[in-house]
Amino acid sequence: MATPAGRADVNHAWRLVSRPQGRVKESDFEWTEARVPELGEGQILVRVVYLSLDPAQRMWMEPVDSYMPMLPLGSVMRGGTVGVVAASRNAAYAVGDIVQGLGGWQECYAGDTTGWTRLARIPGVPLTAFLAAMGHIGFTAYFGVMDIGQPKPGETLVVSAAAGAVGSIAGQIGKIAGCRVVGIAGSEEKCNWITRDLGFDAAINYKKENVRDALKRECPKGIDIYYENVGGEILSAVLERANIGARVAVCGLISQYNATGPAPGPLNFGNILLKRVRVQGFIVRDYVPRFPEAAAKIVPWLAEGKLKFRVDVTEGLRSAPTALNKLFDGTNAGKLLVKLSDEPA
Amino acid sequence: MATPAGRADVNHAWRLVSRPQGRVKESDFEWTEARVPELGEGQILVRVVYLSLDPAQRMWMEPVDSYMPMLPLGSVMRGGTVGVVAASRNAAYAVGDIVQGLGGWQECYAGDTTGWTRLARIPGVPLTAFLAAMGHIGFTAYFGVMDIGQPKPGETLVVSAAAGAVGSIAGQIGKIAGCRVVGIAGSEEKCNWITRDLGFDAAINYKKENVRDALKRECPKGIDIYYENVGGEILSAVLERANIGARVAVCGLISQYNATGPAPGPLNFGNILLKRVRVQGFIVRDYVPRFPEAAAKIVPWLAEGKLKFRVDVTEGLRSAPTALNKLFDGTNAGKLLVKLSDEPA
Repeated sequence: MATPAGRADVNHAWRLVSRPQGRVKESDFEWTEARVPELGEGQILVRVVYLSLDPAQRMWMEPVDSYMPMLPLGSVMRGGTVGVVAASRNAAYAVGDIVQGLGGWQECYAGDTTGWTRLARIPGVPLTAFLAAMGHIGFTAYFGVMDIGQPKPGETLVVSAAAGAVGSIAGQIGKIAGCRVVGIAGSEEKCNWITRDLGFDAAINYKKENVRDALKRECPKGIDIYYENVGGEILSAVLERANIGARVAVCGLISQYNATGPAPGPLNFGNILLKRVRVQGFIVRDYVPRFPEAAAKIVPWLAEGKLKFRVDVTEGLRSAPTALNKLFDGTNAGKLLVKLSDEPA
Repeated sequence: MATPAGRADVNHAWRLVSRPQGRVKESDFEWTEARVPELGEGQILVRVVYLSLDPAQRMWMEPVDSYMPMLPLGSVMRGGTVGVVAASRNAAYAVGDIVQGLGGWQECYAGDTTGWTRLARIPGVPLTAFLAAMGHIGFTAYFGVMDIGQPKPGETLVVSAAAGAVGSIAGQIGKIAGCRVVGIAGSEEKCNWITRDLGFDAAINYKKENVRDALKRECPKGIDIYYENVGGEILSAVLERANIGARVAVCGLISQYNATGPAPGPLNFGNILLKRVRVQGFIVRDYVPRFPEAAAKIVPWLAEGKLKFRVDVTEGLRSAPTALNKLFDGTNAGKLLVKLSDEPA
């Protein structure tokens, strides 16, 4: 069996050893070192290049089965990765192939290929696109807007966490679909980025102004679609301004993931009745059979520069536990990634 | 112009004169007496036989436009009615026709025919069926279960306010669709009625036992559809027990209509995301073009005795304001109606 190029036959990993209370602490994880195991028949060894850090990972640390089985204490922390095949006992994968899958918070993944896909690089588009604009991020944005939102030209789409990984893509897809797109974000820099660089029609800095008032100003024809990434008060404000027949795609509730109690719903639930609102929770994994449809749209959008993204890359696996909190502080600028090794040439 | 048979040419009405705070008081209305006006071209005069009292009427008293325009103070209180045409200047309506429409809280309706329909009596079925199992009640139950619930045989449907006018019909339609149907109601008598007389599979008395525990016992395969009539804590309990892909038809939020603040959503909103729940508010008026479809199903169900209903009839228009509160106390047994005059032979 080959070992990862330029590395010893050793794998470092972050293992979850205690259930975080509120924010994640480094001491909730254990830094472990072990020999890379021998591959079994059908298995591959992947040298991880990029590890994705996502809000959902906070949820995966909880002692409950969610849409993913509960992660037992002592396990390598779960996470999406892009890497290079360093050894293969599977005829479908060759050494040097670029692959994407749940490699986890570790330098080398050794195991079977369930859930892994081989990537075809998009000319002129960096490898990070597969974690920032395709994969779970891009497909979540795509199906939330297109399948649940059912946008019609001229409608108004509001996106929360609009400068976040999913939100920034969701808003741009809304523009492509012909909507007026209003993003809600937490800094002037983020607001400027989504309006100037991504083409959102307007941005609301929820830390600077009252969201209710701002929605009234920026959504003169009401709100037809709300792409919900945060939970809490913003949903209440949106429901007040919602049009009859509005759709709410519940993609994430980031304001709630560190909460120690249950997440409350909007304060004005009666609007759901009065305005015949459809509130639909969804998980991108339910759309796996339709991923090719989303990829067929997103790849040309990326290649043509219609869909932009930015990444916030932290160097070295050791930084993962502390870097994750940036998502909840809102201090990341773009899709949060950890770089573990060099990109292949 | 003819006057109502056996009556003076006088109309009594309850007019809304102040916005109720919390429960309705008789002093929120004024009892007025006026001459029945001359009919204009195209108008009809209806002698009201039954006035429907519904939870939504409490909402119509608020100083807001909802799915109905705000009712100005001084207006005859809005309400659904069944009556007999006593005079007509409209070729489509003859004296003696039985008609249904928003006649309001008054003895005689004189006006145009917008929103009025002529009724064909169903052999062997009392006239009250048009207010208790057809019309806004029956069609609300029908579209909430069939269109929003999308029931499949073997699924579990939970209905709140299950002995209420809409809930009792919704549950029976769920049975016809092949579901396991579990009703939640507020007395032993109501629970007995829905299980023994209406064929619900189980009933939960929310005043006697913990709804969370009871749902666990009565919904061993989880909950696929929830027909929401009440709002508040029961929705939270249902969401905990909901299956992936569950549907919530938000038909009413009776626990909230007397509230003076906004109605909070469920405490565990995160379940909507994790379980990919679809929460859909709806108003029966949106289904007007499809009413014939519902009637074509409900009429034979009524005639064959597959769909049962009961009515709680109060005598005399004067009782309307106080009778309305029975809906919020849960002291009505069946569809709450006020009888204003004799049924036609």
